[in-house]
Amino acid sequence: MQAIWLENQTLSCRDDLPKPEPSPGEALMRLRLAGICSTDLEMARGYYPFTGVLGHEFVGDVVATPDDPSWLGARVVGEINVVCGQCWHCRAGRPTHCVHRKVLGLKGRDGAFAEFLTLPLENLHRVPDSVPDEMAVFTEPLAAAFEIQTQVHICSTDSVLIVGAGRLGQLLAQTLAMTSCKLSVVVRHDYQREILTRRGITSISEHEVPSGKMDIVVDATGSPGGFKLARRAVRPRGTLVVKSTYASDLQIDFSSIVVDEIKIVGSRCGPFAPALRALELDQVDPTPLIMARYSLSDGLAAFEHAAKPGVFKILLYPED
Amino acid sequence: MQAIWLENQTLSCRDDLPKPEPSPGEALMRLRLAGICSTDLEMARGYYPFTGVLGHEFVGDVVATPDDPSWLGARVVGEINVVCGQCWHCRAGRPTHCVHRKVLGLKGRDGAFAEFLTLPLENLHRVPDSVPDEMAVFTEPLAAAFEIQTQVHICSTDSVLIVGAGRLGQLLAQTLAMTSCKLSVVVRHDYQREILTRRGITSISEHEVPSGKMDIVVDATGSPGGFKLARRAVRPRGTLVVKSTYASDLQIDFSSIVVDEIKIVGSRCGPFAPALRALELDQVDPTPLIMARYSLSDGLAAFEHAAKPGVFKILLYPED
Repeated sequence: MQAIWLENQTLSCRDDLPKPEPSPGEALMRLRLAGICSTDLEMARGYYPFTGVLGHEFVGDVVATPDDPSWLGARVVGEINVVCGQCWHCRAGRPTHCVHRKVLGLKGRDGAFAEFLTLPLENLHRVPDSVPDEMAVFTEPLAAAFEIQTQVHICSTDSVLIVGAGRLGQLLAQTLAMTSCKLSVVVRHDYQREILTRRGITSISEHEVPSGKMDIVVDATGSPGGFKLARRAVRPRGTLVVKSTYASDLQIDFSSIVVDEIKIVGSRCGPFAPALRALELDQVDPTPLIMARYSLSDGLAAFEHAAKPGVFKILLYPED
Repeated sequence: MQAIWLENQTLSCRDDLPKPEPSPGEALMRLRLAGICSTDLEMARGYYPFTGVLGHEFVGDVVATPDDPSWLGARVVGEINVVCGQCWHCRAGRPTHCVHRKVLGLKGRDGAFAEFLTLPLENLHRVPDSVPDEMAVFTEPLAAAFEIQTQVHICSTDSVLIVGAGRLGQLLAQTLAMTSCKLSVVVRHDYQREILTRRGITSISEHEVPSGKMDIVVDATGSPGGFKLARRAVRPRGTLVVKSTYASDLQIDFSSIVVDEIKIVGSRCGPFAPALRALELDQVDPTPLIMARYSLSDGLAAFEHAAKPGVFKILLYPED
């Protein structure tokens, strides 16, 4: 089958890969479409040593299940952490922190940029009929955005600032707007501002960010400068959510964190159910982020396009 | 009057200072005793530019009140932040973060290492009769320790680790033990371990600290190495409380904070009421930390003693 393969920090489009076999408890899915996210781009740059099929944002059709025929034909999305169910994190209800976890297209498990992929049935969620493929493909990053609401109590009276209006920042803007908080988003470019404005979300420039005034600030930049701006914006006893990984260590004045009694919350993968609900109820609309569609065989061109500044979401389709 | 004065990073014992005058709404207190804490030592080393009388841990007798005679003769301790009551933090119930705050013996306000001092009446707390002076003098640092319980929900089932068993670490050990959590304290020296053992608190050495296993970790070291150890000990989705200021910036792998979804909480001044209650109910006993008593006129010797390794609490008494 065809797939986008990463090996020695080099991407290639291959068509010589065998169709994967579902293990007991797993489903085999035929890809409907997949999305390229910033983590994929970082993986391709060698951010993490991984050899295999990339990709973790996808919609697929279940075409084989050794155990449970009730899933056959289902249109599904899938949680990306494949967990043991036995370790202390799994037993404590923290499966995304499973000590033995493998991660679809990221760690120890072939991913979704392929004609076929497998996942345990317990990872799958049926996509509601009313949600089109090009919305459902955003379920995973939307879930990551919704993780914040599982960690931080956001009141409708809170002032909330998102630093960064790229792929993740745009989704965060939509999910955080659902809390009715007083939301603003730091943008750098007009095309970032336009998408927000169309949804009635306030955008401001960097120099308009007030110092020490925001109740909650989310850094979605993954850059030291973004972190610094976010830190400066949060008020004493406020909360700073860090939602992106950083390429290197950060140098931080931690005494000021103590004196101002700041709370910092790291945030990663999130729950699929609220993401699918929000899509079904039209509470969010990620489709304006879609900028281009490529076939899997044009995967390298798709990655080049996705890496250009100002590009939000590039989708990949299998040929048929 | 006599006092310990800081100016140009130089301490001196002076006896030429005028007795302070209480402003409207304030009390004049005669010092009963005061304690030297790590912040005083850092101030003396030039940690913060301050000119005036040092000292903020004290017990005093109210000897004059322009407005409210009901306080006359009361034996009191006092909150150290002198606040405006008008700024947005004060109005939002965060007076310790008042934008215009002055701090007793630390910022814009003469402190407690003097025969007499003043504070607003609203800062004062009467010391229960059953609490002796040498326990009451620990109210302020005990309150700082109790701040953690206002910020973090500590369950009786939580594993809690304190890194550092110096002045603050010892008080934290006693206040956190009150939560019935599974507590252990990282010690470096036998004399630190002994005080804990006498109260039945578990102590461990640095090399016994497990990686990524503790629900809640408190760094009470103020050192980059202590922070690193604390960070390593906390489990995914666990909480890291930073309770000490650091002499310089910290270099931190923030990607791991995101991936492990760690919560970091800065913690500073705390509530006096629970500290006084715990002292009154004999739930804590800080007196084993007292290592020596000096008169104010021997203040410089007292500071030298307090700065020696392994010294917990040095008390200062006015002469009479």
